[in-house]
Amino acid sequence: MATGEEDASVVPQVELLKLLEGIGGGKIGMDCSITPLRQKDLFMVSTTDFFYPLVDDPYMQGKIGCANVLSDLYAMGVVDCDNLLMILAASNEMEKEERNISTRLMIQGFNDQAESAGTSVTGGQTVINPWPIIGGTASSVCSRGEFITPDDAREGDVLVLTKPLGIQIAVNVHQWKNLPAKADKYQSVLQHITEEEADQAYRNAVKSMSRLNKNAARLMHKYGAHAATDVTGFGILGHARNLAQNQKRSVDFHLHTLPILRGMAVVDEKVNSWGLLRGVSAETSGGLFIALPSESVKSFCSELEQLDGSPVFIVVARGDDEKGNCVIIREDYKLYTKYQQGVLAVRLGGPKRRVLACAQTRCRTSCYESLETKSVLISPRMIDGVWA
Amino acid sequence: MATGEEDASVVPQVELLKLLEGIGGGKIGMDCSITPLRQKDLFMVSTTDFFYPLVDDPYMQGKIGCANVLSDLYAMGVVDCDNLLMILAASNEMEKEERNISTRLMIQGFNDQAESAGTSVTGGQTVINPWPIIGGTASSVCSRGEFITPDDAREGDVLVLTKPLGIQIAVNVHQWKNLPAKADKYQSVLQHITEEEADQAYRNAVKSMSRLNKNAARLMHKYGAHAATDVTGFGILGHARNLAQNQKRSVDFHLHTLPILRGMAVVDEKVNSWGLLRGVSAETSGGLFIALPSESVKSFCSELEQLDGSPVFIVVARGDDEKGNCVIIREDYKLYTKYQQGVLAVRLGGPKRRVLACAQTRCRTSCYESLETKSVLISPRMIDGVWA
Repeated sequence: MATGEEDASVVPQVELLKLLEGIGGGKIGMDCSITPLRQKDLFMVSTTDFFYPLVDDPYMQGKIGCANVLSDLYAMGVVDCDNLLMILAASNEMEKEERNISTRLMIQGFNDQAESAGTSVTGGQTVINPWPIIGGTASSVCSRGEFITPDDAREGDVLVLTKPLGIQIAVNVHQWKNLPAKADKYQSVLQHITEEEADQAYRNAVKSMSRLNKNAARLMHKYGAHAATDVTGFGILGHARNLAQNQKRSVDFHLHTLPILRGMAVVDEKVNSWGLLRGVSAETSGGLFIALPSESVKSFCSELEQLDGSPVFIVVARGDDEKGNCVIIREDYKLYTKYQQGVLAVRLGGPKRRVLACAQTRCRTSCYESLETKSVLISPRMIDGVWA
Repeated sequence: MATGEEDASVVPQVELLKLLEGIGGGKIGMDCSITPLRQKDLFMVSTTDFFYPLVDDPYMQGKIGCANVLSDLYAMGVVDCDNLLMILAASNEMEKEERNISTRLMIQGFNDQAESAGTSVTGGQTVINPWPIIGGTASSVCSRGEFITPDDAREGDVLVLTKPLGIQIAVNVHQWKNLPAKADKYQSVLQHITEEEADQAYRNAVKSMSRLNKNAARLMHKYGAHAATDVTGFGILGHARNLAQNQKRSVDFHLHTLPILRGMAVVDEKVNSWGLLRGVSAETSGGLFIALPSESVKSFCSELEQLDGSPVFIVVARGDDEKGNCVIIREDYKLYTKYQQGVLAVRLGGPKRRVLACAQTRCRTSCYESLETKSVLISPRMIDGVWA
């Protein structure tokens, strides 16, 4: 698994975009494809997503795999999945019995989660692979009002995040606990948080990953959401950038809060850097990141918190001092104080206002290169692709 | 890759069916799922299929991966793919530059093939994995007349196969040629066929795998096909068995011909056994195996041969001496003499009539076990699941 900022199982975003140049009319990148069908006024909204198991319990892993692929549909405001295919690899590095038991449990978890989402698995593909894989393809046939194209964010919108960050760190710390080769790392962790806090962060991560974003999708319609994405392998910054780039209007997203699983920020800062506080630590089956009209935000959050039993975080507000689809982490972070179910938001600090990324098309390369070399960008302004 | 009868990258059919028990209402197994949609009289026909590269040329591998996943739609008589997602893994065992070049070429081949099939790639998922992966998810939204449910085979039908068998062997032999550790194996091959014949079999295999089954799907409608499947990882016997089990009526399939790439039968017999002559050698992006009314067969074959420039093989006729959805390889094989483009059918021989498998539900276990233990079943009759 990941030992640094990059998740070793995810193709880096910049590399992926280069590989996919010219495919699908250059519109690949958001969570689902929306394809007009031959049948009048109907569209197919579909997505495929799969990854490698990251929790101990194969049954929970199956549930997470299912929640993760459905989350792409939910990010488009699609509440009902019409068809679900399962993508599976059983590991050739396991003994046959272990493989059969764990694979069967993953399938069962995936299937049960599909049922709880009101859909069912109708097919799939299973292969043997060194690393086990779980995921699927989710599709829905929708009329125009049944999905929300993620391109309508407007000046004055407020963006919310429906799950906390820090999943990868909580999972990695838990893995270290059980790996003799990582005993030193785990001991370093215990200098900053207790064993119980580490265990609790892991349990909260599992619970968060396995929770469906379905209620959020339903409320996106009720409260007139303008755009959304879900936060997964590229971290909140990568997905926020994708979303910003996809907008019809010129809008910036200014992140003022990173809600983080309790204890994970200090681990990221003191033990091993995944880039959490710069927004690039990978998440799995993360929250929806939704642009809402400001007048709807309060009602949206309180209704969703009641339905899901989990806090919703206001992380982003539009700023007015940059032009053109930038994603910026501001110096004047708000301190997010809400505490519930082991989730604590942390204040991002720093002596200067940090511009962590810019998603303007014309400066894409320099931003990506800066991120790739893991430099911290402190320059407050960017003019025509050159950091000044 | 495979070194014996089983393709090491495919979960054995019996194991897979056990794993999937209870999922999807027990109807998983045919090439596509058919899901009734909320919209009146519309159905989603969809499939996901992916595998590991098996040819040298990444561009051709991309074309093959695309032809292979579309083939599942074609097997249902669906001529037009409405939506195609790409499933991809780049290998972490390659140098970065090699990985980028080969991945980009695979993507290009996949994309070009999609265009030649009249569809386009609208999304997908890309991960890092020890083994590279290529494949996709293909979906179409159809009214009832646009697909052919594979359950209507009838007494008197004739079954045809649109591509030859022996793909896995041709590919393995080609791999041996370039692997120092397999030099002995390759030398054994050269005792039975020439180097030029081995190379030609490989070229024909690549050509065959990358050819779309789209014309066959179109003609299935024109000539009133009753059922079809495509022949891939479980070999012709595994897929024929699936198809037989899926029928509404009680029909047996009696295979009388196995059309095989020239030279591959003798390699299977003398050098290494993949189980080719028992129908269990894996194929990739294989032919459609179609039940046609006998009066249509001649016209179907001649029209398809003209469109595709490749021979179509009549491999199966219904017999009358068994009861209930059996797949049988008969003693009285016909000698298939048609020769074209390096494809030669071979006569299956043996002193006794061989019953290679039976797909009756009540004897599934014994048949599967027999296949798993790789025993050759010579008993001519089966009564209530016991080989007598």
